[in-house]
Amino acid sequence: MRTGVTAIHPRGKTSNDAVFAAWFTLNGNGEMTGTTWVDDSGFLNGPVMITNTHSVGVVRDAVIAWKVKHGTPDMEGYWWSLPVVAETWDGYLNDINGFHVRPEDAFHALDVAHTGPVEEGNVGGGTGMICNEFKGGIGTSSRVLTAKEGGYTVGVLVQCNYGARDQLRIAGINVGREIAEHTVFKEDVGSIIVIVATDAPLIPTQLKRIAKKVSLGLGRNGSYSGDGSGDIFLAFSTANPGAVGTKGLHHLTMLPNDSLNPIFLATVQATEEAVINAMIAAETMKGINDHEVIALPHDRLREVLKKHDRLLK
Amino acid sequence: MRTGVTAIHPRGKTSNDAVFAAWFTLNGNGEMTGTTWVDDSGFLNGPVMITNTHSVGVVRDAVIAWKVKHGTPDMEGYWWSLPVVAETWDGYLNDINGFHVRPEDAFHALDVAHTGPVEEGNVGGGTGMICNEFKGGIGTSSRVLTAKEGGYTVGVLVQCNYGARDQLRIAGINVGREIAEHTVFKEDVGSIIVIVATDAPLIPTQLKRIAKKVSLGLGRNGSYSGDGSGDIFLAFSTANPGAVGTKGLHHLTMLPNDSLNPIFLATVQATEEAVINAMIAAETMKGINDHEVIALPHDRLREVLKKHDRLLK
Amino acid sequence: MRTGVTAIHPRGKTSNDAVFAAWFTLNGNGEMTGTTWVDDSGFLNGPVMITNTHSVGVVRDAVIAWKVKHGTPDMEGYWWSLPVVAETWDGYLNDINGFHVRPEDAFHALDVAHTGPVEEGNVGGGTGMICNEFKGGIGTSSRVLTAKEGGYTVGVLVQCNYGARDQLRIAGINVGREIAEHTVFKEDVGSIIVIVATDAPLIPTQLKRIAKKVSLGLGRNGSYSGDGSGDIFLAFSTANPGAVGTKGLHHLTMLPNDSLNPIFLATVQATEEAVINAMIAAETMKGINDHEVIALPHDRLREVLKKHDRLLK
Amino acid sequence: MRTGVTAIHPRGKTSNDAVFAAWFTLNGNGEMTGTTWVDDSGFLNGPVMITNTHSVGVVRDAVIAWKVKHGTPDMEGYWWSLPVVAETWDGYLNDINGFHVRPEDAFHALDVAHTGPVEEGNVGGGTGMICNEFKGGIGTSSRVLTAKEGGYTVGVLVQCNYGARDQLRIAGINVGREIAEHTVFKEDVGSIIVIVATDAPLIPTQLKRIAKKVSLGLGRNGSYSGDGSGDIFLAFSTANPGAVGTKGLHHLTMLPNDSLNPIFLATVQATEEAVINAMIAAETMKGINDHEVIALPHDRLREVLKKHDRLLK
Repeated sequence: MRTGVTAIHPRGKTSNDAVFAAWFTLNGNGEMTGTTWVDDSGFLNGPVMITNTHSVGVVRDAVIAWKVKHGTPDMEGYWWSLPVVAETWDGYLNDINGFHVRPEDAFHALDVAHTGPVEEGNVGGGTGMICNEFKGGIGTSSRVLTAKEGGYTVGVLVQCNYGARDQLRIAGINVGREIAEHTVFKEDVGSIIVIVATDAPLIPTQLKRIAKKVSLGLGRNGSYSGDGSGDIFLAFSTANPGAVGTKGLHHLTMLPNDSLNPIFLATVQATEEAVINAMIAAETMKGINDHEVIALPHDRLREVLKKHDRLLK
Repeated sequence: MRTGVTAIHPRGKTSNDAVFAAWFTLNGNGEMTGTTWVDDSGFLNGPVMITNTHSVGVVRDAVIAWKVKHGTPDMEGYWWSLPVVAETWDGYLNDINGFHVRPEDAFHALDVAHTGPVEEGNVGGGTGMICNEFKGGIGTSSRVLTAKEGGYTVGVLVQCNYGARDQLRIAGINVGREIAEHTVFKEDVGSIIVIVATDAPLIPTQLKRIAKKVSLGLGRNGSYSGDGSGDIFLAFSTANPGAVGTKGLHHLTMLPNDSLNPIFLATVQATEEAVINAMIAAETMKGINDHEVIALPHDRLREVLKKHDRLLK
Repeated sequence: MRTGVTAIHPRGKTSNDAVFAAWFTLNGNGEMTGTTWVDDSGFLNGPVMITNTHSVGVVRDAVIAWKVKHGTPDMEGYWWSLPVVAETWDGYLNDINGFHVRPEDAFHALDVAHTGPVEEGNVGGGTGMICNEFKGGIGTSSRVLTAKEGGYTVGVLVQCNYGARDQLRIAGINVGREIAEHTVFKEDVGSIIVIVATDAPLIPTQLKRIAKKVSLGLGRNGSYSGDGSGDIFLAFSTANPGAVGTKGLHHLTMLPNDSLNPIFLATVQATEEAVINAMIAAETMKGINDHEVIALPHDRLREVLKKHDRLLK
Repeated sequence: MRTGVTAIHPRGKTSNDAVFAAWFTLNGNGEMTGTTWVDDSGFLNGPVMITNTHSVGVVRDAVIAWKVKHGTPDMEGYWWSLPVVAETWDGYLNDINGFHVRPEDAFHALDVAHTGPVEEGNVGGGTGMICNEFKGGIGTSSRVLTAKEGGYTVGVLVQCNYGARDQLRIAGINVGREIAEHTVFKEDVGSIIVIVATDAPLIPTQLKRIAKKVSLGLGRNGSYSGDGSGDIFLAFSTANPGAVGTKGLHHLTMLPNDSLNPIFLATVQATEEAVINAMIAAETMKGINDHEVIALPHDRLREVLKKHDRLLK
């Protein structure tokens, strides 16, 4: 198996324009580098990378090398970089201590990132992930607000690797107890990285609130965020393009706090759905040591939801 | 209507023995005084009070007066007090700007607090509360861990005043959409104060994690923690009695981090249940300006849960 | 002695226009109410009050009553208030458990607040304060940036009640060791509240950084911020008037992060000076139980500074 | 020039016994990996590494490889690692984008770490550092408390790379203005990493307070912690050895909060001194592009201090 890397360019790979950002940790048994400067500057300046736990370092330095090659300083003119790189653990399926991720894998992820539909399931950083003891990986979901609410989009991408089977809820139903076979760990080990992107004009204080609300989406799916979990969330806003890259005063727009409710709700809903989508898209995988993790069986899921009158008719 | 005050004495009303504590804010449109010293000392030294938003001050100073009357300094020997007083807003049912809560109400709450079953619903600070646009108030729930898990108890008390009807989930089912009549606000206004008590020997770092997990319980009930919400949680441990009240080194026990999972799960489950219990216990109330808030109709609830095969048989 | 209250109206007493704000705790043995909403909203919406430790409650509710009388909702339209009230302990000179501060004292402070020079020393909340075991109280200082730096003003107000004599440095010199007589506590008890106001267009993330820098000013004066100290700092920006009080998008200006250095330095310098100014302005006071605290003797101070070649010639 | 790495083993290089720890950011333009798990677990589990900004990744993954080679899981039994690696920027003297630090450099630093006196100045991670526009690097200092205070030791190690010359104070005197030649940047760029170690039995909440007090030591030296600065501090306690590595309850000792003052003061003093020691030990260095940074001239320093009557006689 090739262990992978996922790259997110907030404004596309050729832009050097920072975005407002903030982050939050629900359970800290994980890593997201670069966050002290996100906290203090209020900005995310460069890509967000997600990989496995033991490859954070190689990917981090590779981002700097990639930036150096592209020849641009930081948005504030600093000639140093503090890349944001997060991780979840894939050591059940991947030979994680073989350190197979190389700088080239990070360059590749940075280069092939594209607009349009996002690949889900066993791809990129999500390759070796396990979610509620089904095969996990990358999942995404989004909501578009009504025109009256501002028409903004809230998109969520998860690298989903957390969860005990018996806690899994889908559409509110304890699916995990009804599809109880082929479990792996019996405990909530693993982690989840959640990236929330929006075009709503939010300042960092507001994005911090968004990042916190992610917890509520995971709650809907039954997570209790175990001790071994690195549940780390980052939210950024692509609004105000060009505003911050220049000298002199930045001119910004900001959504009033009392208009945030639809964005909060969208964040919760899209998080809830992105986790499910990761499991729906992922396929059964056999990894090292003959470890196998099965995909969530779609037919069984339909059956359970139907039994509880939770399927659209 | 008499607006009330709820008092919690971590070790009983005659004890001057502090408890380890920590707190967390999911959404900060609310108040919990005394928290900077909880943060820095790691201790809660005195009662936790919950009242309405505009009575936090009178209750706070009353706690000091009550302590002065009982003649004891702070656990560290300081002759000043920084009481912990939280609130939720009851201005829909109560004449909140009449400032009807008096020091005597706080003294009364401090004096009548007792061990044993806790009154729920329209009592104390919970009198005028509204939860998911049903009548809310005080709710409690607890879990006892298995002997293998340590046999610890996790108890949760909520003053429940948050939530939009259409988001309400009970046992995972969108009950709020199926019992849609008699709503009040159409938005997630209001707040929730959650107090988690345990006899597990936890240090403040661990109690902070417990406080954060409360979010996941609210997530299970469908909360998206709106902008107007003061969702503030405090967790304390009654373990290590007597350890901290003396001069010289404190001798403590501490649960290993990797034994916390059952406590995390218990916190999530007891939070989920305490909110429901608050609504189940509360009764329809008519307040100022002929405002009426209906209780969650028990029969309708049973009907909905039965329809979705979510009732025990 | 009349124990007092100090009131600061960020935009003047008739304005209902919120300001961006943030706060920081260097040592948490103190109180500043209203801070969870400052954190989450990014705004300070109303006055900042400073009083003694056991009068925070009465002053807090009085602010609400004063707002109710003036008939205006919160900037976001909420009809509840979460006032910001801070404190330091005056129990050595004042009968603090007599609860002598009344709502009328808070109304008075709110009403008489004015523009122009600020009274310093034994006034308002600063009446009974002790600073480095000299008489303390209210102190202020400000810096005006050069035109090239933006021409902004940074003003600092302290209610100064902290410090062990033997650590006191003035202009870098251990003045406290050379004027060693008439000490009170021999330890760093007491507290300091620091309010930083600026017209530089800063967002809350940046104001949080300003609040943290206050520590460096206290460091210059020799503070080690003892266990009994409530060292709590709040920073706000009066820029962007009118921007946030309306529905629809807020249009803001924001200073780039890489232009903050002169403001950081101004904050440090003005904090350093405001503490000294509090002591310079305060006069010897005799309080309860014949407790007397002497003013910093100006002539002795000049002598010490001259000895170390630290006086301007 | 060979860019280096500094390694600190809290309990020696053969121990797998974690220590309580906490961290704090005064200004976040820097990196310290592994901190979300320090925050949540309360433990530091492995070495602390300090290197240059663009080598954090390679050093981080190298720590994992070194641990894998030594064949031990995490203290909690997790087979993953979240190493703590911090940095400051050496790009004025070092070809930082040449990525010259290799895994072998990290292995070497981990292997040669020793007890006894610590090399200071241009060594390890401190090789290319600049402090107050003099040559900086590694500096250390410690204080031993009196027997009555507990007899504990507080040791501080800094990798010192911050500061504008004109703000530099030594022993309270503005030395930087009197030795004004050969400056480099004219602004407070650069950063400082501060590690505080103590054998006092402190829990994480208390270590967080220690970490915050570091700011006050930097304040004494005149820092204003500029926008470009990564001022990140970590404190750990070597007390309670063996207590946390086993299953079952941990038995701990903890110093009462009201005994912390001597440790706070020791932290402030040792930080103040360690920064000066870094400059005193460092030697003039010529790096890339003929950049030269001069050492603080000892004779000039003595002269200035003598002028201000600040030398011991």
